Amino acid sequence: MYLGIDLGGTNIAVGLVDAQCKILKQNSRPTNAPRSYQEIVKDMAELCREVTESAGYTMADIKGIGVGTPGSVESKTGTVVYGNNLDWYNVPLAEELQKHFPGMPIAVENDANAAAYGEYMATGGNTDSFVAVTLGTGVGGGIILNKKIFRGFNGAAGELGHFTLIHNGEPCTCGKKGCWESYASVTALIQQTQAAIAENPDTLMARYAQENGKINGRTAFDAAKAGDSVAQKVVDQYISYIADGVVSMVNIFEPEILVIGGGISAEGEYLMAPIRKHVEEFAYSKGLPQTELRIASLANDAGIIGAAMAAVAE
Amino acid sequence: MYLGIDLGGTNIAVGLVDAQCKILKQNSRPTNAPRSYQEIVKDMAELCREVTESAGYTMADIKGIGVGTPGSVESKTGTVVYGNNLDWYNVPLAEELQKHFPGMPIAVENDANAAAYGEYMATGGNTDSFVAVTLGTGVGGGIILNKKIFRGFNGAAGELGHFTLIHNGEPCTCGKKGCWESYASVTALIQQTQAAIAENPDTLMARYAQENGKINGRTAFDAAKAGDSVAQKVVDQYISYIADGVVSMVNIFEPEILVIGGGISAEGEYLMAPIRKHVEEFAYSKGLPQTELRIASLANDAGIIGAAMAAVAE
Repeated sequence: MYLGIDLGGTNIAVGLVDAQCKILKQNSRPTNAPRSYQEIVKDMAELCREVTESAGYTMADIKGIGVGTPGSVESKTGTVVYGNNLDWYNVPLAEELQKHFPGMPIAVENDANAAAYGEYMATGGNTDSFVAVTLGTGVGGGIILNKKIFRGFNGAAGELGHFTLIHNGEPCTCGKKGCWESYASVTALIQQTQAAIAENPDTLMARYAQENGKINGRTAFDAAKAGDSVAQKVVDQYISYIADGVVSMVNIFEPEILVIGGGISAEGEYLMAPIRKHVEEFAYSKGLPQTELRIASLANDAGIIGAAMAAVAE
Repeated sequence: MYLGIDLGGTNIAVGLVDAQCKILKQNSRPTNAPRSYQEIVKDMAELCREVTESAGYTMADIKGIGVGTPGSVESKTGTVVYGNNLDWYNVPLAEELQKHFPGMPIAVENDANAAAYGEYMATGGNTDSFVAVTLGTGVGGGIILNKKIFRGFNGAAGELGHFTLIHNGEPCTCGKKGCWESYASVTALIQQTQAAIAENPDTLMARYAQENGKINGRTAFDAAKAGDSVAQKVVDQYISYIADGVVSMVNIFEPEILVIGGGISAEGEYLMAPIRKHVEEFAYSKGLPQTELRIASLANDAGIIGAAMAAVAE
């Protein structure tokens, strides 16, 4: 039995996870950032005990605790070197958590890497090369090579959303221009939808947005499925941005499996079919075994499960 | 003592290499493609003996032979699954070479991977993450992770030149649009130079091209250094394409070292200084240890040395 902690800017979520990647029990508390890391870790520790005991276990049943945290992590020491969201610099996260659980094996991973590792383990954890792409507020990624999280030499590898898809394109929040994230994130889709509605106020898509009181990641998809041709254009263009990034990742990594997760992945085959077609047509290595493209299977649980599985691997 | 074979579409080059990555002797023959792989391998074997003997050694002194070949390679069996340049499908290259040298350890690698491995070993072979980018006729790459060539699950990983730098941009020879290669290769630089000369026939750059009877990868660089402002624009734009791809690779891999090779790398710091500046400014992971950017050190010898070193690793 393992505990997985998904530390976010908004919530701290903790789950009790078995060796088969199944969450038996979970609970969460608000992160209430900014506050000291000691207070946040105290909440983590309390949640760990609560979740374990509410499932009928004791801490003696727990073989390890894994934490997925925003920011770059020095995995050997479990230190968060730099975490923008929580304004953390050189926070000794593993050391602090260890104080609450002496002798307990503790693993700390970057949150995107932990989620990718969860998705990897959910595919069976057998392949030597695996890439996870998450289309959310941003575009995140995780790379699993030789069954291990690939972190780069400074713990910050896998920023797949920040390769350039359009040289000198839209400014990205990271300071660079034209990042994949600026075109393929849900944030970008909402902007693309908004721009299309502004130019075409008499469309079904515009009515959906008005009825909902806002534009979200589903507005264009829903309207397109209902036959709105302007919405269809938005969706086609958006998917082409995703697909062009996916084929780029395939050409670089040739992973055995690439999964696409995040809110938009709920669109399932409606999203995946054109991506598959694009990759099939434009991947560099034709005539060879091809990367299997899948929708991520764990949704919001990937963070907790991946963190717990990182503790297993520890 | 090892033998490294660099098999190209034009020449077969063989070098006798010591364990310190030094070529003691080398020789080459024309590939004379297309012809049967048996004939090509026979020439390889003859070159191996010639080079060894001309250096005063015998085949008994050779501890292994490595081959860098175009195409995708199944490294376990040493089979070239598909090699476009030589029109090879499922060629049992290691097996055929073994017939000439029974009992000899033989390694077969993709040529770009072999060259990257050579550059890696030339940096000392100590880092866990290393990326080589080659700016030549195309843009090639090689990825060394955990001290091993990263090949992907089908032997075709590392096509760094074929990530998309400009969505829906220039058509690439690979069939996709907007590949990095279409902007950052020497071929692309020549086209960019040509276009600028056509629009600005009264420039120093145009005169250089006329005097040389052709435009090459140096035309714009030479004219820019001599004060031609149009040439300077071409060079600045070209370097910005390279730099934007390099920062993309840094964000994805966070390699400890990234080297840039190929003909253009002869420009040295004139090329590297603006690339360093761009990466420093736009890399995602600010405040962390940064990737060291270097000019590749082996030039045309990388293929032979890398192939030989692959035999050492075997």
